[in-house]
Amino acid sequence: MTTEQRSSGRRRNPATRAAILATAFDVVAELGYAGLTMEKVASRAGVGKQTIYRWWPNKGVLVLDAVLERTAGGGEPVELPDTGDLEADLAAVLVATVGELADPGFDRALRGLTAAIIEDAELARAYHERLDAPMRELKKRRLRRAQEAGQLDADVDLDLAVDLVFAPVAQRWTVRSGDLTPEGARAVVRSALRGLAAR
Amino acid sequence: MTTEQRSSGRRRNPATRAAILATAFDVVAELGYAGLTMEKVASRAGVGKQTIYRWWPNKGVLVLDAVLERTAGGGEPVELPDTGDLEADLAAVLVATVGELADPGFDRALRGLTAAIIEDAELARAYHERLDAPMRELKKRRLRRAQEAGQLDADVDLDLAVDLVFAPVAQRWTVRSGDLTPEGARAVVRSALRGLAAR
Repeated sequence: MTTEQRSSGRRRNPATRAAILATAFDVVAELGYAGLTMEKVASRAGVGKQTIYRWWPNKGVLVLDAVLERTAGGGEPVELPDTGDLEADLAAVLVATVGELADPGFDRALRGLTAAIIEDAELARAYHERLDAPMRELKKRRLRRAQEAGQLDADVDLDLAVDLVFAPVAQRWTVRSGDLTPEGARAVVRSALRGLAAR
Repeated sequence: MTTEQRSSGRRRNPATRAAILATAFDVVAELGYAGLTMEKVASRAGVGKQTIYRWWPNKGVLVLDAVLERTAGGGEPVELPDTGDLEADLAAVLVATVGELADPGFDRALRGLTAAIIEDAELARAYHERLDAPMRELKKRRLRRAQEAGQLDADVDLDLAVDLVFAPVAQRWTVRSGDLTPEGARAVVRSALRGLAAR
């Protein structure tokens, strides 16, 4: 083990890491992605700028970690409910998402991260690997069980199914094209599943 | 008419306006939204910074106008096709969108605008009024005719219908969660319409 590797072992100091991520979350929630600088996070968290740079090479990955830390499961994707009622299970997940987005701080931090992802293909890849792909896999697993139970069309592409169920709420949030409500979320799931149902 | 009003009449100098918007489009396509400054656009377009500020009070509305100018119809929403075959008509629109997004310059400029919209509620309102709402109205008009012809469920909410048909491709583009293909776009339309069909 080289000195450098031992040094990067400091990444695991949980209190400092938590303090930096909590501060980064607050800064992006307050000032937006463009307003966040490593200097500002360092000074508010009471650490040296080099400490942040050692663990997070740029502000994109810092904001990604900060948002992941606050999502349900602390960035560890959570298995979808399976009561046997596919519509109720998917609606529960989507209604919970609508609830998370109703929190102004979480809304603004996620807007900061999403704005960065849109323009930064490398950060988008990290987001995909860390959150989007594992979440998508769990959604597909739930849909696959429904497909095997004959509740979904056997020919349906499960990536398309995930998009049909989850994209309408996400996109409405992204461009603010309408209100997000639990009723609206349930209506999306109902229509999407009708479109994907076994014939 | 006051002097100020006459002065704002200069907005209609079409050559200068077109040069500024074309330059702003190129700058955001090249450097992203954060990299665009009014100074840079002014210097590249060969106009004074004050000329730009007189017509566009901030870079958000400048980028909005620049992108609108390049979209089909020059920002004037175009009526959807109506051949009587709803699935083919919606697929044609969505496949054309996929084609537009395959142009790297347009892709990057639209990413810049979308990143700005995500964090800026006021710009999002302007985008909504100028582009999203009129486009949505035309989409709903096409869907309403299909509903009246008995092709869509009479109870279906047309805003939900628009989201179900158009959001999956838009969201996949936004977070780069998968490839955009004409075949994928057609499959989305097919499943969405099945979900919205008259019972």
